[in-house]
Amino acid sequence: MELLSNTKSFGGWLKRYRHESLSVRGEMTFAIYLPPQAETQKVPVLYWLSGLTCTDENFMQKAGAFRKAAELGLAIVCPDTSPRGTDYPGEHESYDFGSGAGFYVNAEVAPYSNTYHMYDYVVQELPHLVETHFPVTDQRAISGHSMGGHGALICALKNPGKYQSVSAFAPITNPTQCPWGEKAFAGYLGEDRKAWKEWDATCLIEKAEERLPLFIDQGEADNFLVEQLKPEAIEAACESAGHPITLRRQPGYDHSYFFIASFIDEHLEFHSKALS
Amino acid sequence: MELLSNTKSFGGWLKRYRHESLSVRGEMTFAIYLPPQAETQKVPVLYWLSGLTCTDENFMQKAGAFRKAAELGLAIVCPDTSPRGTDYPGEHESYDFGSGAGFYVNAEVAPYSNTYHMYDYVVQELPHLVETHFPVTDQRAISGHSMGGHGALICALKNPGKYQSVSAFAPITNPTQCPWGEKAFAGYLGEDRKAWKEWDATCLIEKAEERLPLFIDQGEADNFLVEQLKPEAIEAACESAGHPITLRRQPGYDHSYFFIASFIDEHLEFHSKALS
Repeated sequence: MELLSNTKSFGGWLKRYRHESLSVRGEMTFAIYLPPQAETQKVPVLYWLSGLTCTDENFMQKAGAFRKAAELGLAIVCPDTSPRGTDYPGEHESYDFGSGAGFYVNAEVAPYSNTYHMYDYVVQELPHLVETHFPVTDQRAISGHSMGGHGALICALKNPGKYQSVSAFAPITNPTQCPWGEKAFAGYLGEDRKAWKEWDATCLIEKAEERLPLFIDQGEADNFLVEQLKPEAIEAACESAGHPITLRRQPGYDHSYFFIASFIDEHLEFHSKALS
Repeated sequence: MELLSNTKSFGGWLKRYRHESLSVRGEMTFAIYLPPQAETQKVPVLYWLSGLTCTDENFMQKAGAFRKAAELGLAIVCPDTSPRGTDYPGEHESYDFGSGAGFYVNAEVAPYSNTYHMYDYVVQELPHLVETHFPVTDQRAISGHSMGGHGALICALKNPGKYQSVSAFAPITNPTQCPWGEKAFAGYLGEDRKAWKEWDATCLIEKAEERLPLFIDQGEADNFLVEQLKPEAIEAACESAGHPITLRRQPGYDHSYFFIASFIDEHLEFHSKALS
């Protein structure tokens, strides 16, 4: 692992690393915020999955999360949103497919199947790396925004026991039924729509082995609410399956980090309770 | 004034405007954060002056200031760091001169003397505009970072009674004696170094008519500390003149917004006390 930067904030340290990833067969960059408590004890980790177009930096710069993380003694890890080392035809042309848009799945369609294994990276490789190299416990929480909010939901739903808590901001809840998801899943997973259901949070609720409560904040002034995010889909699936969900519709808030910043403290407190 | 965006955050609203400025003879963009209290009463205003290369957006996105501003009932106004509508020879070539680097002075050297009147804009035109169009009182505080930290200091020192409080993060304290300042002052003010002293915070301390306390945070791991910022210069001037100053050297912190975010709450509380 190569340390790219090391910046003090709220008494803790934000560190960015580049490393060779086995999952994506190339270099990946991630960031970790270590709260001051990590100097003398192991701390639990919140994994944050960002949305379309983001890198490891957006959340760290814009969410205003470090104050509360430093208070709670919580580390935060932000991976990138896709592999970056390739140049497949069209890979860098759309904001919603290819680079910056890995959707936290394992791609099965060539050439993306060679490297776009963001699910394996986020669920297996990155926690292993983090738990090997940093003063952290094996207590994990996961959260994210938009594409990353959905990523957090499927990582938790597909891995009972792996995460102590899950939350999301404005997640795509039902990607098999919205334009962003249909484009990404067709491109990464192929044309068999039945297979897509293994990667759709709303479809996974019905057979979830663990009743891990979902905590979701959604802005009511979010431009993507009706066409792409569809919180009513996962809400109905949870109701039907008896899966616990807290879905808060926040009047006036949009899809931006100004919305995330407004409620991140409550999410960190929610996770900290589950992790302690 | 043209409203460019309107975004809810922490119960208040971040609004960006474009308007025709008389001071700079062209369009300017600024941002205002109105806390929730502004819906029912007038609130005081903190003016934030950003550093080299910034626009009105950096502080608003990265400082994490809205949570505390919403709690205290404080509006925050961020102007841009220079006029943007011109294309003088070399204006856009350096990060430390011309666009993005107005230094909050009134330029006297052509062609900059035609439009680079950032001091008049920040001290006169912008407060007048803000106090005319928004639910704010005439209670004002001023703060900023680096070039903008120096801007805040000179605005306060040159205008007794105009601001109730002043603070700065990692300010250039003595621009007549550092490379950034020498380049900017030569380019904007001309070769008469005596005239520069009217725009140098450290030089202004000696004849300050008002003993407004200076509150400064400076990171000890700041790359620009020794060559450009020189807090010891203003500290010595304050000691010599009996001007009140609180200069905190923060171990381990650099020049970034991660440093500002770590201490912005304390600055907002400092200003709020002076404004109430």
